[in-house]
Amino acid sequence: MAKFVAIIPAGGAGTRLWPLSRRSAPKFLHDLTGSGQTLLQATVDRLSPHADEILIVTGAAHADQVAEQVDIDEANIIAEPSPKNSMPAIGLAAAIAKERYGDAIIGSFAADHVIDDEAAFAHALEEARRLARVRTLVTIGITPTGADTGYGYIEPGEKITRDGLSVVEFTEKPERKLAERYVADGYLWNAGMFISTAEGLTRALEQHAPELAAGLEEIASIWDIQWRRDEAMGRLWPDFPSCVIDRVLAEPLAAAGEVAVVPADMGWSDIGGYPALAERLGGAELATTDPDKVMASASPGAVVFPGDRPVVVHGIEDAVVVDGGDVILVTTRTGSSQLPEVLGGVAEHGREDLL
Amino acid sequence: MAKFVAIIPAGGAGTRLWPLSRRSAPKFLHDLTGSGQTLLQATVDRLSPHADEILIVTGAAHADQVAEQVDIDEANIIAEPSPKNSMPAIGLAAAIAKERYGDAIIGSFAADHVIDDEAAFAHALEEARRLARVRTLVTIGITPTGADTGYGYIEPGEKITRDGLSVVEFTEKPERKLAERYVADGYLWNAGMFISTAEGLTRALEQHAPELAAGLEEIASIWDIQWRRDEAMGRLWPDFPSCVIDRVLAEPLAAAGEVAVVPADMGWSDIGGYPALAERLGGAELATTDPDKVMASASPGAVVFPGDRPVVVHGIEDAVVVDGGDVILVTTRTGSSQLPEVLGGVAEHGREDLL
Repeated sequence: MAKFVAIIPAGGAGTRLWPLSRRSAPKFLHDLTGSGQTLLQATVDRLSPHADEILIVTGAAHADQVAEQVDIDEANIIAEPSPKNSMPAIGLAAAIAKERYGDAIIGSFAADHVIDDEAAFAHALEEARRLARVRTLVTIGITPTGADTGYGYIEPGEKITRDGLSVVEFTEKPERKLAERYVADGYLWNAGMFISTAEGLTRALEQHAPELAAGLEEIASIWDIQWRRDEAMGRLWPDFPSCVIDRVLAEPLAAAGEVAVVPADMGWSDIGGYPALAERLGGAELATTDPDKVMASASPGAVVFPGDRPVVVHGIEDAVVVDGGDVILVTTRTGSSQLPEVLGGVAEHGREDLL
Repeated sequence: MAKFVAIIPAGGAGTRLWPLSRRSAPKFLHDLTGSGQTLLQATVDRLSPHADEILIVTGAAHADQVAEQVDIDEANIIAEPSPKNSMPAIGLAAAIAKERYGDAIIGSFAADHVIDDEAAFAHALEEARRLARVRTLVTIGITPTGADTGYGYIEPGEKITRDGLSVVEFTEKPERKLAERYVADGYLWNAGMFISTAEGLTRALEQHAPELAAGLEEIASIWDIQWRRDEAMGRLWPDFPSCVIDRVLAEPLAAAGEVAVVPADMGWSDIGGYPALAERLGGAELATTDPDKVMASASPGAVVFPGDRPVVVHGIEDAVVVDGGDVILVTTRTGSSQLPEVLGGVAEHGREDLL
């Protein structure tokens, strides 16, 4: 039977969770939910029972921290010299998997998502691996828990297997009204989980992004020869376009009827910001990892991450207070959605060091 | 000419300015406005050019800090074993002044107020000292800058001198509507500044609170003999009632036509809380003593006191953020008026140490 190779793209700045998440130590390196594990560690542990190999693709600046956090062969940590978004990262890992393991099935899973129901995930993954033999690309689609406007949606089509459906279309993040219609019509959230054969993915990439595919195959072919790898990466990587797998592969393949989806209801969250993180922590009155250090009153919906000092919050609904150690953030759940712009202001203030 | 003895009652917890103001180091010991001087130091400096002697009455726990902050004969620092509010404090200082300096004029001025226009204060004080020869009690009344509901008001009567008027009545803190009427009718704010002769004040106290007066006179008579003072204080002070000069003397004396007021427009503030402190610091967008450390956006009216770390505030109108070193407070201007209740909650949380 073909090997299953799990690919974990460990990137993304997580600015909506600043100052917990920083450029120097992004979201996936943190134990945001107080589970005792970082998001990356939980992702590796979730995939380990299923995967013959795990490949982690991360920024060169974070490779050491990744190696410290997870017990994985260092040859399986792939460092990008510069961020190019998901397609080059997954494409490189897929090409290396094909080179090393031949006719493998690969699946890529973000390093910074959480899943409560591991059995439901395992079930969906099993079905997706089966479907990867009959469709070029398979995704696991999340059963929506609300009309969220922060995710792209997947329009499912006819049934292929008991638990698998064809994908009609991947949609952009919708407006509220449209999101409500999507949910009513049985659309699923796109959680960016893609399963395929290594062969199928690289062939699809040859078709839809031939230059990128050629570059990645050249790098992969000499990946395990260090001096040639460094030369090839230095020569080719900088010119790769920054692009996402959704645009480059998932959308055109769906249009060609080559994508399947396995719906899954498994307590998934991308912890995209403080409201989502608060939901994981629970507590309608107060969401915090350290209730001993928080004294909140008349502040329903408050989200408080204290540092080494206690925090007193009074009279601010949906307050978000984060003691980041070297900086303190005070905003609201609504305000926290503007953190990317706020951080622009912090940079303009001459405090790039805090980002 | 009679000596002028300034009395500075340096007490009050200043809980509405917590955690800047603490039990262990109340408001008057702090440079809240970033002027380079603590409120106590500014008060002493303001009175020094006018006073032959300055007596500071403070809690025993704060006497050392007072002595460190101001250049004053230690014999002029009067330590209370327990807080008894303004009447016993001022009464004791008055009795000591009478004992030491005979027919002195005394004036009492809170240690934690600010006055911008020192010339206007000097002018009003001069007039008040003259009036103290013809009325038992003289107060300096503040020309209101708005219909504030946080102060008691003084109803002025007929003219006595060019700048002096008789007082009809001292009022309690009014409701909004009443405050507006008071301001329209020319009432003045009661800033708790009382000028009289030492003789006149002690005699009035004999009449209105004979037991307290007798106790204070006994203590004052042996004040400068340490071992007898300690015995008398230990025996008498604990049983003194906790009472304010407004109730015990000012109100009944006003009813008897024995009080005069000198109106003064001198940029006075009692810095009673964060809104008042913000007004001193200026800046409708942001009030702070340390703009380099504060990055505020979409938060008009924010009041931010950073500690050693920068503070980022976004999307909270009238936010109040105070890094108190060992605790962080996050509230709003409105919420800060409930700080006494909030601190009750902090105590219930088992964190009396933070008060």
